[in-house]
Amino acid sequence: MPELRKDYVTDTWVVFSTWRSQRPVETKRQPSRPTTSSSCPFCPGNEQMTPPEIMAYRSDGEDNGLGWWVRCIPNKYPALTIDGEVKRTISQLLHSVNGVGAHEVIIETPNHSGSLPSLDEKQIYEFISAYRDRYVDLTRDARFKYILIFKNQGPEAGASLSHPHSQLIATPIIPRRIMDELREARNFYEKTGGSCIYDEIVEDEIEASERVVMETEDFLVLCPYASRFPFEVWILPKKHEVHFEEMSSDDRTALAKVMKDSFSRLDGLLNDPPFNYYIHTAPCDRKDHRYYHWHIEITPRLSKTAGFERGTGLYINPVPPEDAARLLREAPKGSAG
Amino acid sequence: MPELRKDYVTDTWVVFSTWRSQRPVETKRQPSRPTTSSSCPFCPGNEQMTPPEIMAYRSDGEDNGLGWWVRCIPNKYPALTIDGEVKRTISQLLHSVNGVGAHEVIIETPNHSGSLPSLDEKQIYEFISAYRDRYVDLTRDARFKYILIFKNQGPEAGASLSHPHSQLIATPIIPRRIMDELREARNFYEKTGGSCIYDEIVEDEIEASERVVMETEDFLVLCPYASRFPFEVWILPKKHEVHFEEMSSDDRTALAKVMKDSFSRLDGLLNDPPFNYYIHTAPCDRKDHRYYHWHIEITPRLSKTAGFERGTGLYINPVPPEDAARLLREAPKGSAG
Repeated sequence: MPELRKDYVTDTWVVFSTWRSQRPVETKRQPSRPTTSSSCPFCPGNEQMTPPEIMAYRSDGEDNGLGWWVRCIPNKYPALTIDGEVKRTISQLLHSVNGVGAHEVIIETPNHSGSLPSLDEKQIYEFISAYRDRYVDLTRDARFKYILIFKNQGPEAGASLSHPHSQLIATPIIPRRIMDELREARNFYEKTGGSCIYDEIVEDEIEASERVVMETEDFLVLCPYASRFPFEVWILPKKHEVHFEEMSSDDRTALAKVMKDSFSRLDGLLNDPPFNYYIHTAPCDRKDHRYYHWHIEITPRLSKTAGFERGTGLYINPVPPEDAARLLREAPKGSAG
Repeated sequence: MPELRKDYVTDTWVVFSTWRSQRPVETKRQPSRPTTSSSCPFCPGNEQMTPPEIMAYRSDGEDNGLGWWVRCIPNKYPALTIDGEVKRTISQLLHSVNGVGAHEVIIETPNHSGSLPSLDEKQIYEFISAYRDRYVDLTRDARFKYILIFKNQGPEAGASLSHPHSQLIATPIIPRRIMDELREARNFYEKTGGSCIYDEIVEDEIEASERVVMETEDFLVLCPYASRFPFEVWILPKKHEVHFEEMSSDDRTALAKVMKDSFSRLDGLLNDPPFNYYIHTAPCDRKDHRYYHWHIEITPRLSKTAGFERGTGLYINPVPPEDAARLLREAPKGSAG
């Protein structure tokens, strides 16, 4: 079983998961853009190459057969394992939790080369709905404190397979970046007698306008003031929403539109850049997090972090967010794929 | 001037430094291992290709000429700039500090291919002494709160030039990873009535022995319990030492021996792996940090961090430190170069 361990001194946690090193890796990027690949476990017709599906959107046809448009499977090389109870062990300076959790893959489209900007809004709506369905199902498991939905695009961003897919990891602890956001958002809420710091960001950034990429009735897309990475982009709901999974069908339609637009701009400007994105939402620990505000962070992988960043946690970024936002506002909209 | 900015919500700082993107990059690794390269600005004979030196170890010869065995120069594309006063600006959620600091390069050897395991202990002693000399000189500048000495080896680790060199960045803030260590070390000191948490790590890990790579009279080399990265290695002084720069000449001789041994093992096992290392020492802010304990952290770059790590700050590591330490104990000692 995998194991989570805390650093002797700081609140830095690590998941030890040895079988992860056995993952298959596509050695070369395919120069052409086929719509299916016979060797791809995520392509239609190859359903038997994956573990049995957890869920699929399919109008007819059998489980683990053809006919799906979004499909969710367990990760074959999971970072955490679904069976067992959560046990903490503390002995002097050594603090561990056994690696109970969930690790799933959400195949976003049957199209092997269906990159995000090339998908129609309906298909994006569909995989966002799958994010929500899987999220809601896993929140019923009281062993899990946090669920991160994320995507790695391109080998430079850590993706081992190119077929469009997202992932979800449920953890038995609340990870530190989430803890940091929760703590500071709660402090702000208490200090201001009930204001949300993310509402304040939305309001201030719309007023300042120089870091805004686009704005719709429901969402604000911006390059954050202290962007850690070149062309980092955040998508924030404009109204105060604590939980990602509580979005209505209309909200998901609006988000699909904004995601297609944002990734089309990144693609048009940076030509199919490798990137990661992830959804930050309130923990699923059944506590009251009314001061929090879910959002999406998109971080292209254009530069390498080095010893300075590893040693300090302080990032060096050559592209000011004001420049990044202006370029993204003016960008032609690409549709790689 | 560069600028440091704090994230709206969390204590994450970013240095914005636009000219960094103009750095020259060696596009290919040289397959052979020449001792000098005519195009390398760090090679003897090419001293005019760098900014004027800040310091050099040279028995005779002119400044910025031949005859040196360690040479220190300003970074041509600095992340921070040496002139000006430190000014903080706080406006609603936007918090910035102007980018005053120092960014220097320490050329470790005149030999273009003199990788760390191939250098003799005397030469390693020399560049460690240069680390100390530059460190002590910069601590006189009251604008600087922290000085990080670090090394990037290999393009995967963020090195843009292959000639062996380290770097030093002095910052007007204490970075967050250092703050985290200081805070927890102080908590431990207060809770235990005066014990150092790093002394405790040394004692416990020697007793447990399974994560120890090697031990000398003065230093312990280990793979830490919650290693974030495969084959992460720490070098800790066994006696309680707060400040790296207070090492005696004998201490530096002992450290040179331990560094040669450690990097020879990493090289013998992993065949010239890309890596970062950095020295964590107490801040140079003239405060009492008696609870702290300097050390070196070495992090090979064998895996990529992806969306999960970026989104959570929680690391996934496929290699348990007990396995890494055993393999490093048994490793043949390489000497790439």
